[in-house]
Amino acid sequence: MEAKIGEIYGQVLQKVAPSPTEKEKIQSLAEEVKNRVSSELGAVMLDVRVMVGGSVAKDTWLDGEADVDVFMLFPTSLSKEKLGEIGLRVAKRALRDFSQKERYAEHPYLEAEMNGIKVNVVPCYRVEQGKWLSAADRSPFHTVYVKERLQTADLRDEIRLLKKFMKGVGVYGAEVRVGGFSGYLCELLVLNYQSFHHTLEAASEWKIGTVIDIENLYQGRFDEARRLFDAPLTVVDPVDANRNVAAAVSSKRLGEFIMACKIFLERPSISFFIPEVDAPLSPSLFKGKLSQVGYDVLFLVFDCNVAVPDVLWGQLYKSLKAVKKILVQNDFNVLEASAWSDEKRRNVLVFALESSLISASNRHLGPPIDSKEAVDFLAKHVGADSTVIGPWVEGNRWIVGLKRKYTDVASLLKDGLSDGGKDVGVAKKLVEAIKDSLQVFVNEEIIPFYSSDRDYALFISNFIRGKPKWLT
Amino acid sequence: MEAKIGEIYGQVLQKVAPSPTEKEKIQSLAEEVKNRVSSELGAVMLDVRVMVGGSVAKDTWLDGEADVDVFMLFPTSLSKEKLGEIGLRVAKRALRDFSQKERYAEHPYLEAEMNGIKVNVVPCYRVEQGKWLSAADRSPFHTVYVKERLQTADLRDEIRLLKKFMKGVGVYGAEVRVGGFSGYLCELLVLNYQSFHHTLEAASEWKIGTVIDIENLYQGRFDEARRLFDAPLTVVDPVDANRNVAAAVSSKRLGEFIMACKIFLERPSISFFIPEVDAPLSPSLFKGKLSQVGYDVLFLVFDCNVAVPDVLWGQLYKSLKAVKKILVQNDFNVLEASAWSDEKRRNVLVFALESSLISASNRHLGPPIDSKEAVDFLAKHVGADSTVIGPWVEGNRWIVGLKRKYTDVASLLKDGLSDGGKDVGVAKKLVEAIKDSLQVFVNEEIIPFYSSDRDYALFISNFIRGKPKWLT
Repeated sequence: MEAKIGEIYGQVLQKVAPSPTEKEKIQSLAEEVKNRVSSELGAVMLDVRVMVGGSVAKDTWLDGEADVDVFMLFPTSLSKEKLGEIGLRVAKRALRDFSQKERYAEHPYLEAEMNGIKVNVVPCYRVEQGKWLSAADRSPFHTVYVKERLQTADLRDEIRLLKKFMKGVGVYGAEVRVGGFSGYLCELLVLNYQSFHHTLEAASEWKIGTVIDIENLYQGRFDEARRLFDAPLTVVDPVDANRNVAAAVSSKRLGEFIMACKIFLERPSISFFIPEVDAPLSPSLFKGKLSQVGYDVLFLVFDCNVAVPDVLWGQLYKSLKAVKKILVQNDFNVLEASAWSDEKRRNVLVFALESSLISASNRHLGPPIDSKEAVDFLAKHVGADSTVIGPWVEGNRWIVGLKRKYTDVASLLKDGLSDGGKDVGVAKKLVEAIKDSLQVFVNEEIIPFYSSDRDYALFISNFIRGKPKWLT
Repeated sequence: MEAKIGEIYGQVLQKVAPSPTEKEKIQSLAEEVKNRVSSELGAVMLDVRVMVGGSVAKDTWLDGEADVDVFMLFPTSLSKEKLGEIGLRVAKRALRDFSQKERYAEHPYLEAEMNGIKVNVVPCYRVEQGKWLSAADRSPFHTVYVKERLQTADLRDEIRLLKKFMKGVGVYGAEVRVGGFSGYLCELLVLNYQSFHHTLEAASEWKIGTVIDIENLYQGRFDEARRLFDAPLTVVDPVDANRNVAAAVSSKRLGEFIMACKIFLERPSISFFIPEVDAPLSPSLFKGKLSQVGYDVLFLVFDCNVAVPDVLWGQLYKSLKAVKKILVQNDFNVLEASAWSDEKRRNVLVFALESSLISASNRHLGPPIDSKEAVDFLAKHVGADSTVIGPWVEGNRWIVGLKRKYTDVASLLKDGLSDGGKDVGVAKKLVEAIKDSLQVFVNEEIIPFYSSDRDYALFISNFIRGKPKWLT
C-alpha cells in the first residue's frame, strides 16, 4: 500500500471511527433501550429474549451515523399477527417518553428518537438457524456471525472505511431507492477479503455474476449459485445458503462500484470518501445550463403519498421504466432517466431525451416479398391516411413510410398517461395520482417548480450532469 | 380463366401483336440488314455466318417496339480485338446510308436507325455450345432454342402479354437501370409455364430463391443451383447450365412482380399492361405536395458523363448506396432512395429522409461494466467536449450522451463528400464529378432545377409517391 493511500485511510478513520466517549454513549443508550424493553416485557407472559443488533452491537457504525437496533426474539408459538401487535405495544410503552413512529417494512417495527439518535425496536421470532418465520429472524444470526469473527480480527475500522467509501461513491444502502450495498454486506466483504484495501482490489476485478461464498456453502458450485440467484453480484449469506446478501445490488451500483474501485486505486483521493458538499445551481444558472446541454429534459411531476419508502421507490422505478418504454416505442430516444421524491407528496420522473421533437414520419419494415402477409401489409398501407410514402420493396422486404402520431413528447405523454398509465405498466399505487395530478414540463418550463424545492433542485442539478459525482 | 381476364388479354393483344403488314415490314427490314452485312462480309477473307436474332427472329416483339438484331458469327481463330475491329468496320460500311453509333457494352457493336427502327449489328464467335468466347456468343443459341420450341406451340402472343405486363408494372428490362426481366427471360417463363396466365399464377407464389430449370440440367438438385447462383430468382439457361438468365433481376423487381401478379389475379385491370400516361406535377403543385408529405427530400445533383448506360447506372446505384450509408451512420433515417440521370450530363441522387434536421445529441452504448474497456471508455468520454451527459451505468453497460457532429443533412454531405466520397464508397467514375459539381438541395430548394427538366420532374413526382404505379 502506498504512503498516500495510507494517509488517506488515516484521515478517513479520524472522521468515521467513533471516539471512546462516543462509543460509550451509544452503547449505553443501546443498553438503556434493551433494559426498557426487557422491563416492559416483564408484564408479558412470554419467554422473550432481547438483544442489541446491527452496527452498534458489532461496533461497526460510522461516527455520527449510529442507528440503535434492538430485537425482541419471541417464541415461535406466537402468530405473526400477535407478534406484530404485542411487539409494537411493548416497544411503544418501553419508549413512551420519546417521539416515535410505527414503521411497516416487510414487517412492523417501532422507530423512535432518543437524544438525537434513531432507535429501532424490532420484533422477530427466536428460531433455529434456517427455520425462518419472519423477515427479521435472520438479523440476530447476522449479528452473532459478524461479532464472533470480529473478536479474533480487528477489522472494524476496515469495515468503516468500506462503508464510508460506498457512501461517498453513492452505492451504500440496500433500500430500493439506492439499490446498493447493505451494512451487513460491507461487513461480509471485509471478512472475506480481510481488509478494506483488499476488498477494493478484488472488487475492481469483479465480473458480472461474481459469486462470493465465505462459508463455502456451495462447495465451489458457483454456477449453481449463479443460476439460483440470477443477480449481478451474489454473496451467499453465511447463515442461510438460500439467501443472496447482495440481492439488492443493481447492475448500475455494481458497475459504479467496480469503476470507483479501479479509479480510486489508480488515483487515490479522499474525495471518494468525503465528496464535496453539493449545492444546486441557481435557477438562472440552471436555465442557462439547460439551454446548452444539447439534449431536452422532460419532467413528469405528480403528487402522491406512499407511506413506506421502499414501496414508494419500487413504484417510482417501475413507473419510470413504463414511461421510458412509451417514449422509446414512440421513437423519443431516452438518454438517461431518473426519479425523485420528497417521500411526502411531490414525485418527479425525469428524462434526458435526444430530442423532445421528432420527425413527422418514420420508416416501417414490412413482411418479406414472398410472404402471405405481404398482401395484407399492402392492403393496410396503400393509400392509407397514415402512409406518407410507399410502400416499396427494399432488399427482400416491403417498406412503408408512416406518419407519426406524436412528434412532440408532451402530447404523447398527455395522451398516453391520460388514464394514469395503468395499461402501459405504471405502478398501481401511482396510477390514480398520475391521472389526477400529472404535470408535464419540457426544459425551462420546469423553472418555477425547480425554484420551489431545494432538494429537488439539487437532484436535478446532479441529473443534468448525468454521471457519478466521483467521475471527474 | 374468367371472362373479364380473357377480355383484357384480347384488348392487350390488339395493341401489342403486330399486324401482318407490320410483321412483314420489320422482317423484310431485318432481311435487308442481313443482306447488306453479308454482302459487305464478301470483302473479308473469313468464313462468317450472318443471322437475324432477338425478338424479330422469334416473332415475339411488341408492336411498335421492334429492335432488329443481326449477328455476325466469326470464326474462333480471330482475336477478340480483331473481332471488334472487323465487326464494327463491316457493320459501319453495311449501314453507311443510315445514322449510326458505336456502342460498347460487354463488347462493341453498331447501333443504327433505319426507317425509325433501331438496328443492332453485333459481332460474335461461332462456337460450339458451351465454349463461349465472347459475351454475345450465347445469343444465337438462345434464338435457335426459343424458335424451335415456338414452332410446335403458338405461345408468341402469350410472350407478348407477359412482356407488356412486365413493362406496365415496371419490371421489364435487364439493364442495370431497371434490374428486371429480359425479353429472353419472358420467353423462357412462358415456355416453362405454357401460358401467360399460368406464368402469373406461378409467379404470384414464387419464393425468394425459386429455381426454374426447364431443361432439367440440375436434375432436381435445386439447392446446388441456388447456392451456385445466389440470386433472388434463378432461371437456368437451357443453353448453358452455368448461367442464370434471371441474374439481373433484383429482389426489388422480383417483389414488385410477385405482388403485381397477386393483385392482378385478384382484381384484373388493363392498367397493369397499359398504365395511365404520367405527367409531372407543376412546380407549384410539387412545392405544395413537398410541404405536406411529412418527410424531407434531399437531392444531390452533379454533372457527369459516362458513355455506357449500364456502367453509368452501376456507378449511380453504387454511389447511392454509399451516400445512404453516410446518412444512416449519422442517424439521418432514410425512407426511400433513388437515382436519376439524363444519361448525358445531369445526375441526381434523391433521398426521402424522416428528417433533414436531427437532435443535437445521441446515446452511445459503451462497454460492459466488468470489461477492461470500461476504463478507456470513461477516460475518453468523462468531461470531453463531445460529451453532453454521463457517462452512467444502465443495465450492464456504460452509456454516454454525445454531441452530434452533424445535425443538418446538408452540412454532413458537404463535408462528407468534399473529396467526392472516394473513401466512403462513391463509385470511381463519379468521384471527380461529385467533387467538382455537387449541389445539395433540401425540399423546395430543388424547385428551380425541378422546373428545368421535364423528365426529371416526372421522375421526382413519381419518387415522392414512392410506390409502384400499379399499387393503388
